[in-house]
Amino acid sequence: MEELTSEKVKGYRISPAVIKRLPRYFRYLRELKEAGRMRISSGELSKMMNVTASQIRQDLNCFGGFGQQGYGYNVKYLYGKISEILGVDEGYRAIIIGAGHLGLALVGSPMFAKRGITLTALFDVAPSLVGTEFGSLHIYSTDRLADYIAQNRVDLAVLTLPRAYAKETAEKLAELGIAGILNFTNVELDLAHTNTAVQNVHIGDALMQLTYKMRAAQKPDDAEV
Amino acid sequence: MEELTSEKVKGYRISPAVIKRLPRYFRYLRELKEAGRMRISSGELSKMMNVTASQIRQDLNCFGGFGQQGYGYNVKYLYGKISEILGVDEGYRAIIIGAGHLGLALVGSPMFAKRGITLTALFDVAPSLVGTEFGSLHIYSTDRLADYIAQNRVDLAVLTLPRAYAKETAEKLAELGIAGILNFTNVELDLAHTNTAVQNVHIGDALMQLTYKMRAAQKPDDAEV
Repeated sequence: MEELTSEKVKGYRISPAVIKRLPRYFRYLRELKEAGRMRISSGELSKMMNVTASQIRQDLNCFGGFGQQGYGYNVKYLYGKISEILGVDEGYRAIIIGAGHLGLALVGSPMFAKRGITLTALFDVAPSLVGTEFGSLHIYSTDRLADYIAQNRVDLAVLTLPRAYAKETAEKLAELGIAGILNFTNVELDLAHTNTAVQNVHIGDALMQLTYKMRAAQKPDDAEV
Repeated sequence: MEELTSEKVKGYRISPAVIKRLPRYFRYLRELKEAGRMRISSGELSKMMNVTASQIRQDLNCFGGFGQQGYGYNVKYLYGKISEILGVDEGYRAIIIGAGHLGLALVGSPMFAKRGITLTALFDVAPSLVGTEFGSLHIYSTDRLADYIAQNRVDLAVLTLPRAYAKETAEKLAELGIAGILNFTNVELDLAHTNTAVQNVHIGDALMQLTYKMRAAQKPDDAEV
């Protein structure tokens, strides 16, 4: 996992810990904005998000966007500021490599569009898939990756291919100048020698947090030796 | 998101922050164990995981399993201890509700088996799917949920159905006594009034961490106002 670096806003440096929490603020602020809310207090946001109001004030105060004491945060301003820092305004374009069930599930999800990202193509090695369409996307042969990237803007690639091909594909994407890789393969990719950012998605970690809670509820004192 | 509660091991209380990091230690220790490693130093683990050695010592020392200074951690012992706390030893049994691409992707993934969890059935509403098999799993009608749970041990349910059905299905599962729900629907489920634990999976948050890194690399000073 790469370290997040800090960010300066209005002369304040935002710590990596705060940056890690920003995607969650982004989601809640987006919902508030869509619901037509103009302002929200740290107390109400605290209840919604189940974190302390003082944590929220600490996290968000460096962005500004809040009025006098008790008036709350300006939802639209804060959403805009966080969107900008998270790259939502950049109009990134993405491809998915691996048109198996996970790749196709991602095509069908609103996750990318909600974050300002346009999916432009799918890639796979299976002859039965290459040349077909899924949704509005064409499925290209993975052999055509370099050609496609030369001819089209591609900012990021999503890896949903079998883990045996993860490393070589990631190295190739880095060589081709792709700025980011969202890696679902559970192979820890090390592209520190390149300019390509990597984010690994570990769904299994969420599963473990769930089973931890289940076990703790069943056996609250069991671990006490 | 529910708060994680702390856990006591050998009289030490493990903080929720450490518990959140345990799934990651679990993954790395598992790989080391499979590679036949008996011991590992905090320094080497630090390099592998890209966190400081002192953080690792702080996180892991309360588990014991380490010898004298410089001798390193006992991989098998530590893996076993963390597995136990995370519920890997409980033999949990799981069902998946929603046999769309995401549900089928999860059936095909080794994620559950690697964490000691057995998938036993799929559920869907589509007449074209109900009664068919996927992999070794039968696809039941969602109408049969209560029957199935009455007749089979089910500890946790994975929600991969359309978000419009998330809330009612989760409430029903809680009524039926299911101990845990892994929620992929992006609907924030509130089951605090029940005994059912919920873990939401937000793949979009990982995507935002990636685009943050991409933007920060492109525009290192842009956010400085």
